[in-house]
Amino acid sequence: MGERKIELPNRRGLLLMAAAAGATLALPRLTRAAANKAGAQFGGDLSSVRAAIEKQRPEAIRRLQNWIALPSIAAENRNMKEGCQMMMDLLTEAGFQTARMMPTDGQPGVFATLDAGARRTVGMYFMYDVKQFDPSEWSSPPLAAAIVDKAPFGKVMIGRGAINQKGPEATFLAALHALKAAGRKSPVNIVLVAEGEEEIASPHFGQVVHRPEVLAALSKCHEVFMPFASQSPQGSVEIALGAKGAVEVELVASTEKWGRGAKDDIHSSYKAELDSAVWRMVKALSTLVSEDGNDPAIDGWFEHVKPLTERQKQIIADKVAHTNEADIKKLLGVQHWVRDLSYRDALERLASQPTVNIEGMYAGYTGPGGKTILPSKATAKLDMRLVPDQTAAEAEAKLKAHLAKRGYGDIEVKVTGGYDPTQTDEHSALIKASTAVYLQEGLQVSLSPRLAGSWPGCIFTGAPVNLPAGHFGTGHGSRAHAPDEYYVIESSNPKVQGMADATLAYVKHLYALSVV
Amino acid sequence: MGERKIELPNRRGLLLMAAAAGATLALPRLTRAAANKAGAQFGGDLSSVRAAIEKQRPEAIRRLQNWIALPSIAAENRNMKEGCQMMMDLLTEAGFQTARMMPTDGQPGVFATLDAGARRTVGMYFMYDVKQFDPSEWSSPPLAAAIVDKAPFGKVMIGRGAINQKGPEATFLAALHALKAAGRKSPVNIVLVAEGEEEIASPHFGQVVHRPEVLAALSKCHEVFMPFASQSPQGSVEIALGAKGAVEVELVASTEKWGRGAKDDIHSSYKAELDSAVWRMVKALSTLVSEDGNDPAIDGWFEHVKPLTERQKQIIADKVAHTNEADIKKLLGVQHWVRDLSYRDALERLASQPTVNIEGMYAGYTGPGGKTILPSKATAKLDMRLVPDQTAAEAEAKLKAHLAKRGYGDIEVKVTGGYDPTQTDEHSALIKASTAVYLQEGLQVSLSPRLAGSWPGCIFTGAPVNLPAGHFGTGHGSRAHAPDEYYVIESSNPKVQGMADATLAYVKHLYALSVV
Repeated sequence: MGERKIELPNRRGLLLMAAAAGATLALPRLTRAAANKAGAQFGGDLSSVRAAIEKQRPEAIRRLQNWIALPSIAAENRNMKEGCQMMMDLLTEAGFQTARMMPTDGQPGVFATLDAGARRTVGMYFMYDVKQFDPSEWSSPPLAAAIVDKAPFGKVMIGRGAINQKGPEATFLAALHALKAAGRKSPVNIVLVAEGEEEIASPHFGQVVHRPEVLAALSKCHEVFMPFASQSPQGSVEIALGAKGAVEVELVASTEKWGRGAKDDIHSSYKAELDSAVWRMVKALSTLVSEDGNDPAIDGWFEHVKPLTERQKQIIADKVAHTNEADIKKLLGVQHWVRDLSYRDALERLASQPTVNIEGMYAGYTGPGGKTILPSKATAKLDMRLVPDQTAAEAEAKLKAHLAKRGYGDIEVKVTGGYDPTQTDEHSALIKASTAVYLQEGLQVSLSPRLAGSWPGCIFTGAPVNLPAGHFGTGHGSRAHAPDEYYVIESSNPKVQGMADATLAYVKHLYALSVV
Repeated sequence: MGERKIELPNRRGLLLMAAAAGATLALPRLTRAAANKAGAQFGGDLSSVRAAIEKQRPEAIRRLQNWIALPSIAAENRNMKEGCQMMMDLLTEAGFQTARMMPTDGQPGVFATLDAGARRTVGMYFMYDVKQFDPSEWSSPPLAAAIVDKAPFGKVMIGRGAINQKGPEATFLAALHALKAAGRKSPVNIVLVAEGEEEIASPHFGQVVHRPEVLAALSKCHEVFMPFASQSPQGSVEIALGAKGAVEVELVASTEKWGRGAKDDIHSSYKAELDSAVWRMVKALSTLVSEDGNDPAIDGWFEHVKPLTERQKQIIADKVAHTNEADIKKLLGVQHWVRDLSYRDALERLASQPTVNIEGMYAGYTGPGGKTILPSKATAKLDMRLVPDQTAAEAEAKLKAHLAKRGYGDIEVKVTGGYDPTQTDEHSALIKASTAVYLQEGLQVSLSPRLAGSWPGCIFTGAPVNLPAGHFGTGHGSRAHAPDEYYVIESSNPKVQGMADATLAYVKHLYALSVV
């Protein structure tokens, strides 16, 4: 199993531990002392809060289950108004004095404030939408939020949104409920913005954040934080210092726009004398990536791609040194990384490489058996991940130019969402305070230079907000976007926090942020 | 509009006319005389039969409507037993003394005989299955078989199977009913084989035809004929002297078989370090055709492809000379043939070129909006049309070898059906007798060297049956496999036969075949 590694990454003496998969050693004296010292600041004696969490546990679970039972899916325009209302209700019940629906050109967001009369104000980001799902693929109904035994994690809740993002968000709200029940005020004021279009790449979230009253409120904050259960199965808290940007597009090749082939689907025997929209799509798509499908080949795609810094590479090397690659591969259901790379090279790619992925594709007849038609249309759904200093606008323009240059200008490029990459300084108060909490909890912290996934942190780290932003926390869950998405409620691994411990950790987190 | 052309293609003096789109001239004397002479043989005075057809018209229409109301779709395993039973009932009611279900490894066929004590026995081929359909795409419900006005054709029946093939088959059965009602015996004995898997490329039809009792019955026949409403909108009866073969395959690229990428669908952010089954499919497909998607590029695909003969080219040139290309383009919803070919070149391609077509394709998420997954599987449905002397077995082997040679051996190639091309001599009794009937009806006959579509004629033209085979007839319909498939019931164009006239033409056709 893995070893543990202690390092002193910066002159302020903050202790960070890289991922130590399965490590079971006690904290060394120096670390323990530092953590205990910090621990004393994180709310002092929290026994009454802990008792409140225990007492409120059934209602916290029920609250999450009720939330999961109402899936808001922007792509399907499903329960959006209802989900926005529930988001506001959840916030108000947790102690926010204001929670307003913020209309946009798409689905509404929420702007909420909790004024505790505190010295410091923390910005927060929530999402109330979830990814689509097909119940037939689930072992437990995705809206039932049943709690089942799942080795080796313990009791987990299975449901759409369990980890992404309702479980962690509900856990954070449980922390506010517990503080109140224990007769405590929140140690920080909170300015919270929420959206219902995260899963379609946040096309209108700027319209919420850039409203004058929201910008004014955020200007009092020093960071923007989103709750997440980011412990690995082995227990290290994964803190990503950034995230890739994303652009989602739908490409449509049609005989109608092309002006070739038959206007409608036609008997396939005509293929000999008529052009095919599907072959056109296949040929156009084929130009977008390298022969093995692994490198974007869109003209100029790498123009603004920054290589990893030495520090970023070091963080990755540290992670690799203390991670069991076989465990990760098993977790992901993977036998080989692309090009049979070493784990280190694979993780460097994961952090540093932009991607062009086909998330879905369809054309013609897709039912059982065959149907001899020459289809008049083909659709491909792409998602493209971007790294600094690529921008979403640049990616869209380059994709369109690439297609046009090759004579595919008639292929429609419908951008359905997108945003730029985000990056946060590891020396920011957010990262330092969070890390200190996790260490005090006796957990290991695993930094990564950048999440391969995306979240609209750029809306906060970019102009005009310009704040550090991150999403992490204790607890564990997985299978975001996939069937059987889960969130650990009661953990059978002492190194992985269940919902109640994670709730207490958020309490400490608020205290840690109140004193930085 | 087009001109008419008379030619004497063979030493036996049979008069053939090539397509004369919209031609309205009277038959020249020579042709008319020949037709009248022949006409005298085609059943003599048919007024009582004609009266019976008129009287039975409502029940003939109802019979067809009832048949359309029961769609048998092998791809969906829908109503197969019921459809087979209905086929047998329809045959028995029309006068067949025997009609037996013939089990196969797939869906059952039918073997039926009508012994009229006649001198000559005609082989016939029916199909009782139809293509799949999506009712939402139809202007009239596909199973309602409603009769509606459709300019410029007159009253047409709209329904799945209307033209392909229930309409023409029911019209032929109406001819047998009318003969009976007029107190006549069928002038020929009939040996009929039917199948329920024509639309999935007849994977098990050989198991019906090659049964000893069926082969024995067919050995008494001189040809195998299938009813079809093959008049063009302008009225010429299209007789195809052959048909392309077809192979339908489903290609499946999966991370599971490949052993690369993630076993299941996974969050798309992992694309940077994991291989994609969809890109693999796109790249593999891309190798199968030329850059413009119009020529098969499978290794060795053209090895056994025979060029058109001079006679075949002449038939096409004749057709072109008498067809209005603009009308055809309008009918098909087409602005350009591939590579902007002339109509003649396009028709030569249509007759002579094998095709590799993507009839359908799907991978990953295909619903509304996006879903950021890296799919573990991609499926493409291909149909490939073959020309002499390609064979279905050869095509399958070459496709597999082509993929394997390029490292795509893990992509599954599931052959769902297929058969060889078929070709029939234009000097055969079947073609001669049929042509004589149509000329006697005052119609024009348009030969084509080969249908671009496919039908399992090879089962009859190939060993061990080795008979001429063809499917044609009077009447008109179109949109086979497409929404709003139709069949003309009452024609508003005197040059295009409605159902009643077509019924009488089948009566004459039987008489014509009885005396060759």
